[in-house]
Amino acid sequence: MNIAVLGTGIVGKTIATKLVAIGHSVRMGARMADNPKAVAWAASAGANASQGTFADAAAFGEMVFLCLLGAGTLEALELAEEDNLNDKIIVDITNPLDFSKADFSRGIGPTLFISGGSDSLGEQVQRRIPGAHVVKALNTVTANVMVNPAMIPGQHDLLICGNNAEAKSQVSGWLREWFGWESIVDIGDITGARATEGGMLLWLKLWGTLGTPNFNLRVVR
Amino acid sequence: MNIAVLGTGIVGKTIATKLVAIGHSVRMGARMADNPKAVAWAASAGANASQGTFADAAAFGEMVFLCLLGAGTLEALELAEEDNLNDKIIVDITNPLDFSKADFSRGIGPTLFISGGSDSLGEQVQRRIPGAHVVKALNTVTANVMVNPAMIPGQHDLLICGNNAEAKSQVSGWLREWFGWESIVDIGDITGARATEGGMLLWLKLWGTLGTPNFNLRVVR
Repeated sequence: MNIAVLGTGIVGKTIATKLVAIGHSVRMGARMADNPKAVAWAASAGANASQGTFADAAAFGEMVFLCLLGAGTLEALELAEEDNLNDKIIVDITNPLDFSKADFSRGIGPTLFISGGSDSLGEQVQRRIPGAHVVKALNTVTANVMVNPAMIPGQHDLLICGNNAEAKSQVSGWLREWFGWESIVDIGDITGARATEGGMLLWLKLWGTLGTPNFNLRVVR
Repeated sequence: MNIAVLGTGIVGKTIATKLVAIGHSVRMGARMADNPKAVAWAASAGANASQGTFADAAAFGEMVFLCLLGAGTLEALELAEEDNLNDKIIVDITNPLDFSKADFSRGIGPTLFISGGSDSLGEQVQRRIPGAHVVKALNTVTANVMVNPAMIPGQHDLLICGNNAEAKSQVSGWLREWFGWESIVDIGDITGARATEGGMLLWLKLWGTLGTPNFNLRVVR
């Protein structure tokens, strides 16, 4: 499949590399077509890897992974152009993290620039591209776990949400087939992003406590 | 032990009833000494159960459970009087839930009146009574699970935090001995309350998804 990965950070590179490795054609999108990180990735990842602007990548992809910094997400969608995204499934991995007051040397992590349970970045993405089918997923685990959940032993759960049941079913199938996710919990419409993005504070604190980002949560009942 | 339970709702009654059942003397505190719910509880819970004002209860308890509505927590501490709380361990079970726009019939849950990761109700409680040792705990599970974690099969974790290591150790021992908590994860100082209170949004969404509040999370790594 032709897949767009918007974003050149660790999440984007990890997702894009995994997708190429299992046979997909991936175009990594960035603000500038000659983004050095995207160029370097495309040069190293083989014949099925390419890079371009956000719009180039969005036009290329039959589906789209949003792997952007929270603060840059809506502007990147603007640059990707609505027409290139309409009717496509967007897997939104973003989180509304505000790093402006973070100081990791003092143990102070990022805060959330959307919080409290009355809105979410996932909803903002869906509102910005109403013709796309946004599925919020993977934003609750670290990049390596996203594409290799089996690195965490035993059962643990991935929470997904979105307004379109068919899109969620399609994404669940992809996450299982491409990355190996065995336990996917559908928490409802895109307002569920308020919960999973809000859960970032818990995730960040557990990272600090455990000393590793290689963990996930299991819902036990 | 003489124990204060501040609050007359489901959490207060569940905690207080369990404590009396295992041999403690419990005074339930409310705004008014003749609070009907507290009077009814004390009348039904046996000779070791009593009730009074927040100040009566706080003075009585060698330690204190805060089982208050988030919005009323700081005022209740004011009424309980700082002198009655100094040097005592306060187990803070509150969450900053704002029910003003909730409409359960339409699937709309409460929001958080403190959120985003720069403050928490737990910190506000600690700042209000600096001489007390506040341990945030139990606010991440439903009342029945608080006092009977074994009703959820298998391993699942209780997250606690607070500034005083000795107080956390003491509380961990009590939670194990009194309620049966076997896996307690210390996530650090009281700023951890930002994470566990923020996790309420996730908890509420999972409640809606699972159709039962009888669940908990396990940290898997």
